Amino acid sequence: MSDFFKGIDKVRYEGPESTNPLAYRYYNPEEIVLGKRMDEHLRFALAYWHSFAWEGGDPFGGRTFERPWFDSEMEGAKLKAEVAFELFELLGVPYFCFHDADVRPEGETYAESTKKLNAIADIFEEKMAQTGTKLLWGTANLFSNRRFMGGAATNPDPDVFAYAAATIKANMDVTMRLKGENYVLWGGREGYETLLNTKLDKELDQLGRMLSLVVDYKHKMGFKGTILLEPKPQEPTKHQYDFDVSTVYGFLKKYGLENEVKVNIEVGHAILAGHTFEHEVAMAATHGILGSIDMNRNDYQSGWDTDQFPNNVPEVALAYYHILKAGGFATGGTNFDAKLRRQSIDPVDLLYGHIGGMDTCARGLKAAAAIIEDGSYDAFLEDRYAGWNDAEAQAMLKGERSLEDITARVERDNINPQPKSGRQEYLENLINRFV
Amino acid sequence: MSDFFKGIDKVRYEGPESTNPLAYRYYNPEEIVLGKRMDEHLRFALAYWHSFAWEGGDPFGGRTFERPWFDSEMEGAKLKAEVAFELFELLGVPYFCFHDADVRPEGETYAESTKKLNAIADIFEEKMAQTGTKLLWGTANLFSNRRFMGGAATNPDPDVFAYAAATIKANMDVTMRLKGENYVLWGGREGYETLLNTKLDKELDQLGRMLSLVVDYKHKMGFKGTILLEPKPQEPTKHQYDFDVSTVYGFLKKYGLENEVKVNIEVGHAILAGHTFEHEVAMAATHGILGSIDMNRNDYQSGWDTDQFPNNVPEVALAYYHILKAGGFATGGTNFDAKLRRQSIDPVDLLYGHIGGMDTCARGLKAAAAIIEDGSYDAFLEDRYAGWNDAEAQAMLKGERSLEDITARVERDNINPQPKSGRQEYLENLINRFV
Amino acid sequence: MSDFFKGIDKVRYEGPESTNPLAYRYYNPEEIVLGKRMDEHLRFALAYWHSFAWEGGDPFGGRTFERPWFDSEMEGAKLKAEVAFELFELLGVPYFCFHDADVRPEGETYAESTKKLNAIADIFEEKMAQTGTKLLWGTANLFSNRRFMGGAATNPDPDVFAYAAATIKANMDVTMRLKGENYVLWGGREGYETLLNTKLDKELDQLGRMLSLVVDYKHKMGFKGTILLEPKPQEPTKHQYDFDVSTVYGFLKKYGLENEVKVNIEVGHAILAGHTFEHEVAMAATHGILGSIDMNRNDYQSGWDTDQFPNNVPEVALAYYHILKAGGFATGGTNFDAKLRRQSIDPVDLLYGHIGGMDTCARGLKAAAAIIEDGSYDAFLEDRYAGWNDAEAQAMLKGERSLEDITARVERDNINPQPKSGRQEYLENLINRFV
Amino acid sequence: MSDFFKGIDKVRYEGPESTNPLAYRYYNPEEIVLGKRMDEHLRFALAYWHSFAWEGGDPFGGRTFERPWFDSEMEGAKLKAEVAFELFELLGVPYFCFHDADVRPEGETYAESTKKLNAIADIFEEKMAQTGTKLLWGTANLFSNRRFMGGAATNPDPDVFAYAAATIKANMDVTMRLKGENYVLWGGREGYETLLNTKLDKELDQLGRMLSLVVDYKHKMGFKGTILLEPKPQEPTKHQYDFDVSTVYGFLKKYGLENEVKVNIEVGHAILAGHTFEHEVAMAATHGILGSIDMNRNDYQSGWDTDQFPNNVPEVALAYYHILKAGGFATGGTNFDAKLRRQSIDPVDLLYGHIGGMDTCARGLKAAAAIIEDGSYDAFLEDRYAGWNDAEAQAMLKGERSLEDITARVERDNINPQPKSGRQEYLENLINRFV
Repeated sequence: MSDFFKGIDKVRYEGPESTNPLAYRYYNPEEIVLGKRMDEHLRFALAYWHSFAWEGGDPFGGRTFERPWFDSEMEGAKLKAEVAFELFELLGVPYFCFHDADVRPEGETYAESTKKLNAIADIFEEKMAQTGTKLLWGTANLFSNRRFMGGAATNPDPDVFAYAAATIKANMDVTMRLKGENYVLWGGREGYETLLNTKLDKELDQLGRMLSLVVDYKHKMGFKGTILLEPKPQEPTKHQYDFDVSTVYGFLKKYGLENEVKVNIEVGHAILAGHTFEHEVAMAATHGILGSIDMNRNDYQSGWDTDQFPNNVPEVALAYYHILKAGGFATGGTNFDAKLRRQSIDPVDLLYGHIGGMDTCARGLKAAAAIIEDGSYDAFLEDRYAGWNDAEAQAMLKGERSLEDITARVERDNINPQPKSGRQEYLENLINRFV
Repeated sequence: MSDFFKGIDKVRYEGPESTNPLAYRYYNPEEIVLGKRMDEHLRFALAYWHSFAWEGGDPFGGRTFERPWFDSEMEGAKLKAEVAFELFELLGVPYFCFHDADVRPEGETYAESTKKLNAIADIFEEKMAQTGTKLLWGTANLFSNRRFMGGAATNPDPDVFAYAAATIKANMDVTMRLKGENYVLWGGREGYETLLNTKLDKELDQLGRMLSLVVDYKHKMGFKGTILLEPKPQEPTKHQYDFDVSTVYGFLKKYGLENEVKVNIEVGHAILAGHTFEHEVAMAATHGILGSIDMNRNDYQSGWDTDQFPNNVPEVALAYYHILKAGGFATGGTNFDAKLRRQSIDPVDLLYGHIGGMDTCARGLKAAAAIIEDGSYDAFLEDRYAGWNDAEAQAMLKGERSLEDITARVERDNINPQPKSGRQEYLENLINRFV
Repeated sequence: MSDFFKGIDKVRYEGPESTNPLAYRYYNPEEIVLGKRMDEHLRFALAYWHSFAWEGGDPFGGRTFERPWFDSEMEGAKLKAEVAFELFELLGVPYFCFHDADVRPEGETYAESTKKLNAIADIFEEKMAQTGTKLLWGTANLFSNRRFMGGAATNPDPDVFAYAAATIKANMDVTMRLKGENYVLWGGREGYETLLNTKLDKELDQLGRMLSLVVDYKHKMGFKGTILLEPKPQEPTKHQYDFDVSTVYGFLKKYGLENEVKVNIEVGHAILAGHTFEHEVAMAATHGILGSIDMNRNDYQSGWDTDQFPNNVPEVALAYYHILKAGGFATGGTNFDAKLRRQSIDPVDLLYGHIGGMDTCARGLKAAAAIIEDGSYDAFLEDRYAGWNDAEAQAMLKGERSLEDITARVERDNINPQPKSGRQEYLENLINRFV
Repeated sequence: MSDFFKGIDKVRYEGPESTNPLAYRYYNPEEIVLGKRMDEHLRFALAYWHSFAWEGGDPFGGRTFERPWFDSEMEGAKLKAEVAFELFELLGVPYFCFHDADVRPEGETYAESTKKLNAIADIFEEKMAQTGTKLLWGTANLFSNRRFMGGAATNPDPDVFAYAAATIKANMDVTMRLKGENYVLWGGREGYETLLNTKLDKELDQLGRMLSLVVDYKHKMGFKGTILLEPKPQEPTKHQYDFDVSTVYGFLKKYGLENEVKVNIEVGHAILAGHTFEHEVAMAATHGILGSIDMNRNDYQSGWDTDQFPNNVPEVALAYYHILKAGGFATGGTNFDAKLRRQSIDPVDLLYGHIGGMDTCARGLKAAAAIIEDGSYDAFLEDRYAGWNDAEAQAMLKGERSLEDITARVERDNINPQPKSGRQEYLENLINRFV
């Protein structure tokens, strides 16, 4: 045991009345919700990058965190892994996620970087076996190193594409070895800083090709997990190709990959794209590509991705409602892509952040389940569209009526539909009974 | 002749040195640009709704314009048509565009509304023959009447769908009769005000069905024009299904209509969606769905659609560059979806608005043509991606290499690509030589 | 009794477990919170304009509501008043607010408009006596009529200034007669649509003069209420002079009115200005100008003022926390500047909207009170700044130390301060215990 | 001479027809504009931080620039200074600006940091004498070091206040020694990350005290330059106290400093605050606090401060119009607070960025001068407000009429003002004749 979290005990469920800041008030892993354990619904994962690799810097200031594993190479990486698994244990989170760059120092060459990655994977394998912590997903960091500054798959230089492809392979190999349940691609630099120096058509084709390579390799290696794309509209780029769920869907359709790839939706990315999070979840479910979520929150008054821990139960509840209605997570889960504020410099702040986030999600899940169990909300929705169950309406919808047929009926029956109340305030009140 | 524009003469080209506020300084219809007349490049159209139907109201105040055709029914509609064609003549714009609701009063029934629409179309037909003004596109207003408050094609009530379908048919018929070169669908209420009362999957299927009906009817009636969808992310709705070009592309692919339907891109809608206009144009060209444009400008400090006349040449130039590179307009054109500010209450303001807008576009077009003729910008772009012409790069791109092949090459050749300057500032300066 | 709300009974408190959509679950007027009745804390008011004058239109569609008082002049105004007081009674709200233009038709002349206003005031006076409903504030609508399109006090035409001044006088007179507890000025057109046609310095001086006239008249007439300015950054204008609380504070200081005028802060206006609502409340308290609030909510994904009923308890709780810490409302209160969504066309929707809003505020107030009673949050804050209680720190703060003195001490003592955790996540969790 | 810019010659004016990317096409220092040399109007300054200290990192990636002075302490600082003055010479910019942290490595103690600063100042002094380059302003970096993470003047820890005060003194001393013409304070961390842990009233008082200390010391030391505050609404903080020009004005009034301190306005900060840049310039002129400008541009589609080089002439022209109307710069100037895009990694890119920016400003200045010389725009404005010159209007404005007097006149004369066109489109076209 390192002494990084010295004096902090395992966090336990104490119930809503607890005033212990280091206890769960809502997250009770074994509590049954809609017939399933709460932990199996939520499938929480902790993100290696924010909690262990991020230094607390922002565009106007450098590192604020002082972690004993910074500024040392493989020794630091090993200590970091040790502390990481200690935190997984303290919090009782069942999963974690990582990029290669979070866990190992960069080597001088591709081969060396891969070797270091594998060395850390050995440590992970052992610790996972000891602790039972599992890998929700792995991913390659194709955006931090300066070689990727102009894009990875979408770089004008095909050597960068090749280097990125090789890096993905290394990460897929490690993810498979560690029994990761998904493999994620976030195209942080797959976009442009200025359209002036960019060939959109060429770059999209490159991106489509890379994704096809990934899918082909997945099948070849027998990886049973899900390949996930993570939409984001901008930042670091001015424009990112995987703008939002609908854009990703169009991209997948263009390259014939809509049955092979799903999305990992992040709260803050939805906000940056001008959507609510629940919109993105519901849209993904509609398109059949809902995979996993990156849970966090964005500051509504800031124009960048703040990656804060969620704390607003009503918002989270609506997202879990749509997840539950879509059947819940299959291979996906709730990854905390959330980081401490840079002023939260103490080890115990890592606990506070995750406890608050997990409790918020647990309350949200329970509220969503209560909405579903109550049934009046779903009944309202069914009723609102009930007219479409009529035979003539179904005939229209199925394409059995032409524009002329429908026009003839409108004229013949002098159809003159009257509007009906949309009942938004009623529904908001109804939902507020549960959150 | 009405006396609405009394004292105002036909607007003529007088060249850049002119200080006459009622002359063109850049728009010279017959000037040859890249081997084609300027008017054939730009294909300007004037929008009936903003210039003749809009009353100058905003959410905090009512009508500011006093037009003699307001508050009277068919008589007003006829006077309005007369004044409209007078403005087309004064400005020398070759095209116009309209919704049914702009040109005729609403009837008590569908049949009556259609009859009134046809009566106005008779007048249009005559005036078009007299003046040579042509119809760029027609469209149905499926958003102003309260029957459409909850959507037209996407309404929970199938009777509203039917009424909307019939209305579209009437407008397609009139558009074909007037030899319109396109038919546009803007889904102003096809979206939701709250996700709480909405079934996304159902509504998208309804919208897809409606578009299929339109395409089928187009072929049946032998309409040779283009069917265009107009993206907008929100307003009046909280969320609109045709969010942006990429979303529309995905929608078309979902319903198998990507070869049948193109997009009509509006500047202000691009801005609302978080894009530059040139981005949307270039993205549509990339997806092969660039149809036509609605030219205007949005206030960058306002969060709603301000529909102002364009006045920033550098921005407009980049859009026309992408249009020219995509081969220019086929059936599409440059429609001014722009309205006077509500304080610009005089008839002469209608002239100022359009003159400024047309001159801005003409300068933009000439700048774009100059960039192309100069060639150094295009050469830069070619050079930037030249590496992809190599045989091995092409093999990767075409799918002739697997992830393992590529990885093996990276390892074998110890590929370690170095970043190259993206030259953004150089390119901005280069473009500024032409605008 | 009109039959507008036929079949709807007076809304009563039934407690959190109630599933009756026409009952309060949290708003219990006589419940004691921090030693005071809940209704005396909240001082709810209903806004005449949104609930009775607004027709359901938006920039893309006209009236959706069908109210029997639309389209008739004084008869309609009387019926409207009758229905309004019925709603006040049904909901049990103690206050209302109005603009002249909400309650009476516009006359041909100033004198006639004033006469009509007074006639409606007669009716109000009688109904207020009968029902006990009180007037929280009155105000003049100086933005809807086209005469104000270019501003009221800030118009380039001094006759418009004069007309606006006279209109304000008429409204102040009526407000005083009806024992209004405040008089509000919202400068909906006091700003500019384009800086190009605007003299900022001149217009600000005009605005300062108008406010001085109001303050002088208040004292002369012996009005004991508070004069309130309502900040808003834009909409309908591109820029509004009363941008936000801090801007208003500077304006008041410039014209020497900071002890005479306070602010009426609206949630949605705070959001449009890039602030949280609680920020604006706390800033007003800091400057000593916190007066009253307009409670509503804005859609975070829309860029315009949506004026929805509040429904997010955590957000509302933080605002009431700051109000309570500032001593609660004096003459101010909680006015619902909130309107139904335009699809909520039924009379009963007016009930749902207000019930939801009032319950949200009541929950928020109770949560704020619980935070204060618990005391641990306030104790944290005190502790965080405790260092400033030291003598040397106080000396610095009071100006008893010069830059040189302080520098000398830094050098002498080799002061090298170490950062302390800001504990944001801990505090968010702490607050979440109460909401 | 270092060899950093090897092969690059001094940039010269070659006129608009030049296609040499390393020549000025508009910036001609000695050209006379409105009776004054262009360089005396514009007073360009180069910012040390962006061009020499910034490493090309962003929140998702580290250093992209490879500069020989990175990663070495005083040796690097000296080489950096050498290269900096080489760039000043190559470009022919008359001024530069710096923070302490840009030019010297941080020491272990305050005393050591100050000593290093003074050592670099010795070098600057010598190079300034050799080259004639002058210091537009100096400033202290009170935001990058972790000690300032919770604010400098507004820190809960008075020791941080003291350390900041001492640091400011050191920077003021150096600025005075180097004959800087202004001293700037940008409160990058003077604000809050969460209102939850913040006492607004306390922090504002601390900030007011610090500014008073600065002003007192300025007078004591006999510094003849101007003290400037630089507004910014957010970033890095969620909320920054010096939000915008109007907020700063209120702050100065609150602490009685409005005659002592002016503002340094940055384009991108205006945009972040929801304003145009020309608005902020005009507002500062109105309040008598216009000091200097930080010229750059923000990406309108990004929500953060992008600090790009300006390239849109029409926008820049309007700002210089307002600067010229306010009498031009006194001690202020045009500082390029602009940085290369992180992909612009070559030394020559530093030249492209500044050349483009300087040419854009020069074109803007010339356009602004042409608008003024033409006179028709100013005449329009005078005419628009001419009604206020009438005696009765003046009497109202000067407070010689009460609300009752004005009302009596409105009634007596039956004043019923009619709106006049605001002529926005006409004015936009007029301005476009010059840009």
